[in-house]
Amino acid sequence: MKARRRTFLRFGCSLTAGATGSLLPFLGNAQSTQSQFAPLPTGDGGLRPRVVMDGLLSPWSIAFLPNGEALVTERPGTLKRLQLGGVGADQQGRGKGSGQGSGQIKIQNVPRVHASGQGGLLDVIVSPDFERDELIFMSLAQPTDGGARTAIFRARLRGAELQQVEMIFAQKDDPKGQLHFGSRLVIDPDGFLFATLGERFFERSKAQSLENHFGKIIRIRTDGSIPKNNPFANQSGALREVWSFGHRNPQGAALHPRTGDLWVHEHGPQGGDELNLIREGRNYGWPQITYGREYVTGFKIGEGTSRADVEQPVHYWVPSIAPSGMTFVTSERYSALRGHLLVGSLKERCLALLEMKENQVVGEQRILSSMKSRIRDVRQGPDGYLYALTDSDEGVMVRLEPAPRNREAG
Amino acid sequence: MKARRRTFLRFGCSLTAGATGSLLPFLGNAQSTQSQFAPLPTGDGGLRPRVVMDGLLSPWSIAFLPNGEALVTERPGTLKRLQLGGVGADQQGRGKGSGQGSGQIKIQNVPRVHASGQGGLLDVIVSPDFERDELIFMSLAQPTDGGARTAIFRARLRGAELQQVEMIFAQKDDPKGQLHFGSRLVIDPDGFLFATLGERFFERSKAQSLENHFGKIIRIRTDGSIPKNNPFANQSGALREVWSFGHRNPQGAALHPRTGDLWVHEHGPQGGDELNLIREGRNYGWPQITYGREYVTGFKIGEGTSRADVEQPVHYWVPSIAPSGMTFVTSERYSALRGHLLVGSLKERCLALLEMKENQVVGEQRILSSMKSRIRDVRQGPDGYLYALTDSDEGVMVRLEPAPRNREAG
Repeated sequence: MKARRRTFLRFGCSLTAGATGSLLPFLGNAQSTQSQFAPLPTGDGGLRPRVVMDGLLSPWSIAFLPNGEALVTERPGTLKRLQLGGVGADQQGRGKGSGQGSGQIKIQNVPRVHASGQGGLLDVIVSPDFERDELIFMSLAQPTDGGARTAIFRARLRGAELQQVEMIFAQKDDPKGQLHFGSRLVIDPDGFLFATLGERFFERSKAQSLENHFGKIIRIRTDGSIPKNNPFANQSGALREVWSFGHRNPQGAALHPRTGDLWVHEHGPQGGDELNLIREGRNYGWPQITYGREYVTGFKIGEGTSRADVEQPVHYWVPSIAPSGMTFVTSERYSALRGHLLVGSLKERCLALLEMKENQVVGEQRILSSMKSRIRDVRQGPDGYLYALTDSDEGVMVRLEPAPRNREAG
Repeated sequence: MKARRRTFLRFGCSLTAGATGSLLPFLGNAQSTQSQFAPLPTGDGGLRPRVVMDGLLSPWSIAFLPNGEALVTERPGTLKRLQLGGVGADQQGRGKGSGQGSGQIKIQNVPRVHASGQGGLLDVIVSPDFERDELIFMSLAQPTDGGARTAIFRARLRGAELQQVEMIFAQKDDPKGQLHFGSRLVIDPDGFLFATLGERFFERSKAQSLENHFGKIIRIRTDGSIPKNNPFANQSGALREVWSFGHRNPQGAALHPRTGDLWVHEHGPQGGDELNLIREGRNYGWPQITYGREYVTGFKIGEGTSRADVEQPVHYWVPSIAPSGMTFVTSERYSALRGHLLVGSLKERCLALLEMKENQVVGEQRILSSMKSRIRDVRQGPDGYLYALTDSDEGVMVRLEPAPRNREAG
């Protein structure tokens, strides 16, 4: 097993820098020391959030079509196609009030969802080959006779309609309950589809068994077939989709832009949220190995915080930030953020900005705190801008525009 | 089904009465309106706590021997026999510092316990016929190969030793984990032994099934045999010990001094602690019918707060007080409290005093708040005094002496 260093650095929740200080002090050793942007006094890390769509009911996931339109899921079961407002068009109306509202098209033929608690319509992604195949993929909590399960659907998106809607995966078991469905979807350059699956809270002990889909990351093909070279494909009793196990409730996933590795974060209980680099066939420990503690009682969970056969997180949070959504920043629009990782936080109502150095997290800042919003998703769009969703029944999608230099007094 | 009225009255946590006010204003209609005790300015409800034993490690339960000695369980697995200090002997040293410390005898041959989290050595009671049979009964979390289960033991107490130690009941299943073992024991005048069993948290859905011992109150004989007239004794698939079901984590039980009915309270989740009058064969609802909500998320649990086939609580608490231990006050030493019910509170660090009128709770006060202690048990001793245990690794046993009248200025 390859050892990895773990970092656990704590900073204040807001970025604070003097008027002449660099935007991100911790980037002193990186290429991007000389920020082109001045710090915002609001602690938004050089980002100016501009509402590009409002009127969203518990939005959960953003995806972009090649034409620049966005797809957004709403947890109660709606998929919307959005025409977004322009960039910086209205200098008077920056922030909420500019560009939002218009251009929402509700997509027809979305599968039925178990819209209860944390369940509902969850992730949406667009096929890397959308211009040819018109495919999108959705994860959702699916109602069954017995309870609910996380399922993955594929469909062709034509205008305002889904066609050829097809379930390509469903969890084997379907307990009652409304907690810990996961789920995020990622397609890698080889065309494999990864999905993160929660352990449904009351089934947590099963996250260590390969005989079920609780607390697993799976790898399938986009038609639902299972690759023969999956790590447990030939192991008796194991489910062949399983790629890694011992997860709790993973709600953020992204490919590393340089290495192509899959990075996933997951919610811990009271403390113990984790950022993990996912390796084939590995055990990520829950609920035996964790930095978290039981809710309310604060009791220790499992055996401890490390074990030889269990992967250590790259980074973890105590107390919890309740992470949701994440993206590596590659866009040249954000020279200070580029190469680093943004993670949405529901609980802390900010973005966690993780300074990456190779495969390590060497620093953490909390930015976008001035929005005071629970962040459900954060993505980089094909236009090079960062976008985020707020978790609310009056949710909005914001574009995180780089703040112009020397405008803080304006 | 007999309808019962539910009360839900909220008061402040401390009893406050003017200098000339009655001790318990809500008792205006009761016999005991004219209190013989003046109110304490500390909000202790006319009770002066005096430490009669300190140095207790997470004490859980008090029982009294006919000779006035007390038995106390310590959750890590120790049973102690205590010679208590005298009453009001040292007027200078009232409160902590008086009478405590000496006279602790550790009892030998206590069964092995799963001393983890909420598990360990739990309740202890003394046979009603102790002078003849020398029997005591203990409930505990018992370690097994697979995990742990709540078990009940009977033994003869001779001096500092248990003899003929015998397991008379064990839960059928033994999941891993350290939460919600229950348990309190009560022997009724007919010699039946009732035990309250928790649903082990992660097994909560099983509290509605009669095929297991999770979230049940059972009735057995003191030799472990099962009465043939138990409500489900002839029902196929049901466990014959079951007396009532749909409980969560009941940690207080007492017989009503006049009616002989069994009263039990149980911990709810986030809100929804319940006080129940236990009727043979009835469903108490968990986790389908509850006034509680999920931890952290605040989501609704189950179907709602009432259903025709489910018993309503006599009283419930939102937010939770985390009740532990309880006793009906019958002693003439406490004229204002007599006929009412005292419930220990871990979370609120006080006693909840419930004003009873027939089988209804018509008022609630919080008393003993000045101790600022998590209360694990409260009992009335054969000497007519009330006693309580504090939940701490430096726990104490206190005698709640009636405060002398007109002493508040002294």
